[in-house]
Amino acid sequence: MKFENLKLGMCDSISKTITGKDVDSFAEISLDTNPIHLNEEYASKTIFKKRIAHGILTTGLISAVLGTKLPGEGAIYLSQDIKFLAPVYLNDTITATVKIIELNEEKRKVTVSTICTNQEGKEVLSGKAILLQKF
Amino acid sequence: MKFENLKLGMCDSISKTITGKDVDSFAEISLDTNPIHLNEEYASKTIFKKRIAHGILTTGLISAVLGTKLPGEGAIYLSQDIKFLAPVYLNDTITATVKIIELNEEKRKVTVSTICTNQEGKEVLSGKAILLQKF
Amino acid sequence: MKFENLKLGMCDSISKTITGKDVDSFAEISLDTNPIHLNEEYASKTIFKKRIAHGILTTGLISAVLGTKLPGEGAIYLSQDIKFLAPVYLNDTITATVKIIELNEEKRKVTVSTICTNQEGKEVLSGKAILLQKF
Amino acid sequence: MKFENLKLGMCDSISKTITGKDVDSFAEISLDTNPIHLNEEYASKTIFKKRIAHGILTTGLISAVLGTKLPGEGAIYLSQDIKFLAPVYLNDTITATVKIIELNEEKRKVTVSTICTNQEGKEVLSGKAILLQKF
Repeated sequence: MKFENLKLGMCDSISKTITGKDVDSFAEISLDTNPIHLNEEYASKTIFKKRIAHGILTTGLISAVLGTKLPGEGAIYLSQDIKFLAPVYLNDTITATVKIIELNEEKRKVTVSTICTNQEGKEVLSGKAILLQKF
Repeated sequence: MKFENLKLGMCDSISKTITGKDVDSFAEISLDTNPIHLNEEYASKTIFKKRIAHGILTTGLISAVLGTKLPGEGAIYLSQDIKFLAPVYLNDTITATVKIIELNEEKRKVTVSTICTNQEGKEVLSGKAILLQKF
Repeated sequence: MKFENLKLGMCDSISKTITGKDVDSFAEISLDTNPIHLNEEYASKTIFKKRIAHGILTTGLISAVLGTKLPGEGAIYLSQDIKFLAPVYLNDTITATVKIIELNEEKRKVTVSTICTNQEGKEVLSGKAILLQKF
Repeated sequence: MKFENLKLGMCDSISKTITGKDVDSFAEISLDTNPIHLNEEYASKTIFKKRIAHGILTTGLISAVLGTKLPGEGAIYLSQDIKFLAPVYLNDTITATVKIIELNEEKRKVTVSTICTNQEGKEVLSGKAILLQKF
């Protein structure tokens, strides 16, 4: 979306059920083979009790909204701050929401809040991103 | 690694060549199908000139170091701040480095600097993460 | 590690608490019996106020990282530059950190920064080493 | 020795036969357990053919001259540059020589060349050190 069309308060979102197969693929491409993500027996002995998805995999959904919806193509991802608030379990359906909270016209910078919630509406991740919208 | 064995200044790293196949997989699991990552022709018309990897995919390498090396298993990832400093192109070899910069013994929190460099030593990503080491 | 697997930015570290017994042993094997290292009463009258470890003993921890971790076995230690920045006292816990800052593929030479910090994160030693990785 | 008594060209030295026991002790206190220093069979398959002493252990002899002879007690070791020129084998007798090459009266700094030779007169290590002589 062109910078001129971006408005404070605009938001968009994407939802996806994160499967065991997604987690396995992400472990492979990221090299993050921490057993808390891959090994059900190991995970059962931790405070999480079950395998959890990688926090950075969940963050990928935010990247998806930013890169394909709001601001969408053409935006350059400058920064992302994330707080991991709660575990994401396999087969949780995560909704990533992006909302414009600041627009710097001179620098063409867009600041958005970035939140992921699970199927129960619980926030699992929150944060902020800054993008540069060249167009 | 146990909290008691963590020391200020400790560091560890991991390296990986990010391939087109990795980027395709990440687009699929994250839903981030921004053409800058997937479509060579589209990318050729942008300031990047070529397809670039998702910034969050590169961040996955930091997650790998944190989850498998330092502090390793048992650490809970509380937050991650990231600045994307330069594009990562397909077949770039990225080294993710983590270094302990703060230890809060009372809260058992570990703050690390997180940096990714490419094969030319250029920083492509920098940031900070906080982890909770229960053990 | 093979030269081909070494990447700019890679790092590794080792930590050790330097005891009075270590200092006594090093004095014996190195012949460096300077009383600042061995004699508490003598040391109390110097600007250091207490016995300090030999700087070269601390440097041994860098040798440990280079020889056992990064680049590890097979690397030939060509040179080491050291600046001694602050005293190391008995029972200080020193973390020696090595980071690859230059790779010369033709000559198979690896240049690393070498830093030692104490338990408060203060740099006590900094420098640079060059190694030859034959494999 | 007092700064006023130090003269350009002054030199002093120390000699010591480095034994297998010295190398074992240094490995223990420095954590540098690289098998090239400790394991005869492993070493036999390397370009060195036999166990070699740690370069930093040899450097300890320089520290001995500086700390006990020239300039001796009271000098603060500010920096040491080292080039490792040839291997030191077990039972080699090493002579560490220190020679004053620069005196900065205003800052009370003493620069010395530092050389170690083996029983055949071959240089195994060379370098330079800077010390602060408070007195």
